[in-house]
Amino acid sequence: MSKNRGIFLKGYVDEGLPTESDFKLVEEDIDLKAAGEALKEGETLVRVLYLSVDPYMRGRMKSVPPSYTTSFALNMPLMGNGVVQVVQSKSPNFTAGDLAVTFAPWKDFAVLPAKMLQKLPSGIVASAALSVIGMVGLTAYFGLLHVGQLKNGETVVVSGAAGATGCIVGQIAKIKGCKVIGIAGSDEKLSFLKELGFDKVINYKGKGYAELFKEISEATDGKGVDVYFDNVGGVISDAVYSNLNNFARVATCGVISAYNEGQLPTGPRVEPALVSKRIKMQGFLVGDFASQHEAARGEMLEWFKEGKLKDKATIKEGLENTPKAFIGLLQGENIGKMVVKVADPQ
Amino acid sequence: MSKNRGIFLKGYVDEGLPTESDFKLVEEDIDLKAAGEALKEGETLVRVLYLSVDPYMRGRMKSVPPSYTTSFALNMPLMGNGVVQVVQSKSPNFTAGDLAVTFAPWKDFAVLPAKMLQKLPSGIVASAALSVIGMVGLTAYFGLLHVGQLKNGETVVVSGAAGATGCIVGQIAKIKGCKVIGIAGSDEKLSFLKELGFDKVINYKGKGYAELFKEISEATDGKGVDVYFDNVGGVISDAVYSNLNNFARVATCGVISAYNEGQLPTGPRVEPALVSKRIKMQGFLVGDFASQHEAARGEMLEWFKEGKLKDKATIKEGLENTPKAFIGLLQGENIGKMVVKVADPQ
Repeated sequence: MSKNRGIFLKGYVDEGLPTESDFKLVEEDIDLKAAGEALKEGETLVRVLYLSVDPYMRGRMKSVPPSYTTSFALNMPLMGNGVVQVVQSKSPNFTAGDLAVTFAPWKDFAVLPAKMLQKLPSGIVASAALSVIGMVGLTAYFGLLHVGQLKNGETVVVSGAAGATGCIVGQIAKIKGCKVIGIAGSDEKLSFLKELGFDKVINYKGKGYAELFKEISEATDGKGVDVYFDNVGGVISDAVYSNLNNFARVATCGVISAYNEGQLPTGPRVEPALVSKRIKMQGFLVGDFASQHEAARGEMLEWFKEGKLKDKATIKEGLENTPKAFIGLLQGENIGKMVVKVADPQ
Repeated sequence: MSKNRGIFLKGYVDEGLPTESDFKLVEEDIDLKAAGEALKEGETLVRVLYLSVDPYMRGRMKSVPPSYTTSFALNMPLMGNGVVQVVQSKSPNFTAGDLAVTFAPWKDFAVLPAKMLQKLPSGIVASAALSVIGMVGLTAYFGLLHVGQLKNGETVVVSGAAGATGCIVGQIAKIKGCKVIGIAGSDEKLSFLKELGFDKVINYKGKGYAELFKEISEATDGKGVDVYFDNVGGVISDAVYSNLNNFARVATCGVISAYNEGQLPTGPRVEPALVSKRIKMQGFLVGDFASQHEAARGEMLEWFKEGKLKDKATIKEGLENTPKAFIGLLQGENIGKMVVKVADPQ
């Protein structure tokens, strides 16, 4: 008998930072041999190795979720991207031992349809599969290049720059011959961004609009901002907006500053600047580009293998620490992708 | 001797509604015969017949104008689009009596380079040349079709719908087979919009966010809004934003609610909705599409001649009433294009 733990959401959290007491750990026994024999045709029994925690999950923890998703069910494990290892398979496409990326429950073991599994490309570590080569990398790619319409030689600002998506955005911008300014919240994060090749870095902590505006302006050497990849919103974004050039593009990817708010926050209205500078602001989700994912993933994989894109993860150990990792993510504790290591491959 | 009056701006008005005392009327004599003889090669002496007053002029009355324009000079007449009649010409392209559209000073007579004049198409009245067939019409055309990317069968909301641009936007949307909801500020304006073929009309006066949200939602028959052509900003826009569909487009044309504000107004932040509904908001100016103006004007002229586009103007009489007409425009007194009739053609 093995233990099969699962992390459940106890109730919806409509406002404020979630706490560990909003989650519960439920434990049951599983007989792996019997579970393998009970599989139906096309199913696999998998061991969860790594789980991805991502900001968008905050929206799924609300009783009224954003329109593009649904609330997490309360009497089931939470779910998200993960890397798994096949324990038993009744699919011709997988055999025991295979590693795959999937949409996984927050559990030790699960039965999943084989068609939900994508084999891990050879030579790719789990954290890269959940970041550079995963949804996060594609989010950076489509946001910067398709929504942001980045052109060679332009100046790019990235907020949440040391986060999973932000640090990939900056690296792609460098590949495309652009100047990149990263905004993040600690000196350690800024050092990391410098290592990745960001041209300028700004620590936003403790700074208001006026100071941020001035620092961003100086970081552009007076040239202004052509593309803003926004992960955070709030006063940081206000200060970037005021530095935008005519015909600038804002790729609005996330609004982590608002995720714990019960009500829509207020701020300076954007419309006057949109008109006078002919700015485009556009929100997007990586799923909107599904038909182009495969081609983009191939390009990202090339860059990764050539060493132009680097993978960085903050890894927490243990399924039981998944809520803590998620809460830490919302507080900006991670550098690069926040990942939970649930088990080693067997 | 004839009188040649001019309207000057006395000082910059950085905030608040301008008043007539912000302008002064300066009068001088002009000998039309002598002025005609004094023309240099390529110049024309013109009589101003009609002047256009437009919301963007409010920005030019500020000491710090929007980035796309400059402040009006203080010791010269204000300027704007107008229809003029040639009195004398030293250009082979114009003869006395010709009617033309130009960028004209707020005066009775002026000397202008012939290359600044565009002959009025035959059969076009002055108000149409300043609206449907003029910059206002092109603003509606490019905002709705290029920025808004309107598709057949979609639902469009227009704010400031009874204004010069708004009423053309609605008519183009009907030509394109769309459902059009117009928002305006009086019952008289709503009746006008119904006459033009708007499907639904909403009077915003005295209504807050919640009531506007509900009325817009009902006007769409629960189908939501695909394209929002925004002339006003503020709480009306907040209520429209909340009714936008996934992948909606907002063409931000003007922000008349903010033009008299000294400071940037605040309001609910738009970023969360942009992401969750993948909305595009884009500001634009008609001048950005200059290379495509001629083709679009041809199409608009066809529609106008076929009776599919109707011209509507509110005409004030007398150069001396131009400031009053402009101030009235900012208060929404006009239905259709606000125009000042300065003189009859001779």
